[in-house]
Amino acid sequence: MNETLCIIRQRRSCRAYKNEPIPADILTAIVDAGLWAPTGMNMQDRHFTIVQDKLMLDRMDKLARIKLPESALARLTERNGGNPDISIHYFAPALIVLSGGEASCAIVAENICIAAQSLSIGSCMLGLITILFDNDDTLSRDLKIPVDLPPRLGVALGYIARQTPEQERRPDQVTWL
Amino acid sequence: MNETLCIIRQRRSCRAYKNEPIPADILTAIVDAGLWAPTGMNMQDRHFTIVQDKLMLDRMDKLARIKLPESALARLTERNGGNPDISIHYFAPALIVLSGGEASCAIVAENICIAAQSLSIGSCMLGLITILFDNDDTLSRDLKIPVDLPPRLGVALGYIARQTPEQERRPDQVTWL
Repeated sequence: MNETLCIIRQRRSCRAYKNEPIPADILTAIVDAGLWAPTGMNMQDRHFTIVQDKLMLDRMDKLARIKLPESALARLTERNGGNPDISIHYFAPALIVLSGGEASCAIVAENICIAAQSLSIGSCMLGLITILFDNDDTLSRDLKIPVDLPPRLGVALGYIARQTPEQERRPDQVTWL
Repeated sequence: MNETLCIIRQRRSCRAYKNEPIPADILTAIVDAGLWAPTGMNMQDRHFTIVQDKLMLDRMDKLARIKLPESALARLTERNGGNPDISIHYFAPALIVLSGGEASCAIVAENICIAAQSLSIGSCMLGLITILFDNDDTLSRDLKIPVDLPPRLGVALGYIARQTPEQERRPDQVTWL
């Protein structure tokens, strides 16, 4: 197994981060890897918003506590050791909000997670993040997200405080013809 | 730049393949990398259909010539040196059809493309492939795609016959906060 295959294999969704910023050159390298993701017809129909501003991250967490459904809040509270002061990005020091085509953003997100893993940075894709933008464009405007590109996915990034155990794969997912 | 970042940077959408099968162990390694892609809530809401059967590949190409819109056929004909006997998978020896959640399939597809690149195999995501399944479930049934997982994306795979030049990235895709 070559290095890249190992990195892909080792990536986990990290849900506990160290309170330590990501050096600028490392975060830039991760974002660059995202930019090299393909898009249909090379439309590049996506936008990256890199949030490291603590006030903005706190604001998004407060909004999450108001807007997320009960089931999601219960899950995040449990993962937060029973403390309901949850963070939608698991208190990671950096959060990338991806906006645009659903598939385009998902492809970018995977590049980001693999690149992060290769640089010993943990990551977690955050599908719930779209709920923060529902029925209110204030957050979107303050994040300077282009109006024609809807927020689709978040990616939390930071140094790993707790490793996530490997999740088994279902064996019935592949048909060979 | 580490090896994984280089691989991500070097991946291109390949549209001309050698008429040479991919060894089974290499194709299996690529599929395995796809299986390690994350899914929301670990739902694993995706299915992989690996098509190498020449009759099935030809049938899909014939269907493409009937079902694709004129604009797509014109583009594929141009890429086929003006020959209208186009192939939706660019005559690659292997085609993976991904079915399930849109984001889940896109994430898998990027893992597949990166893994392929790390093994010197070219790849191309094929968004148009969904058109083959429109208004007719015969193909889906013959490909044994689970009925609850709609086909979303194809990935062509094979040895590279012609390198695709690098496409410039728009510089306005990132906002730092």
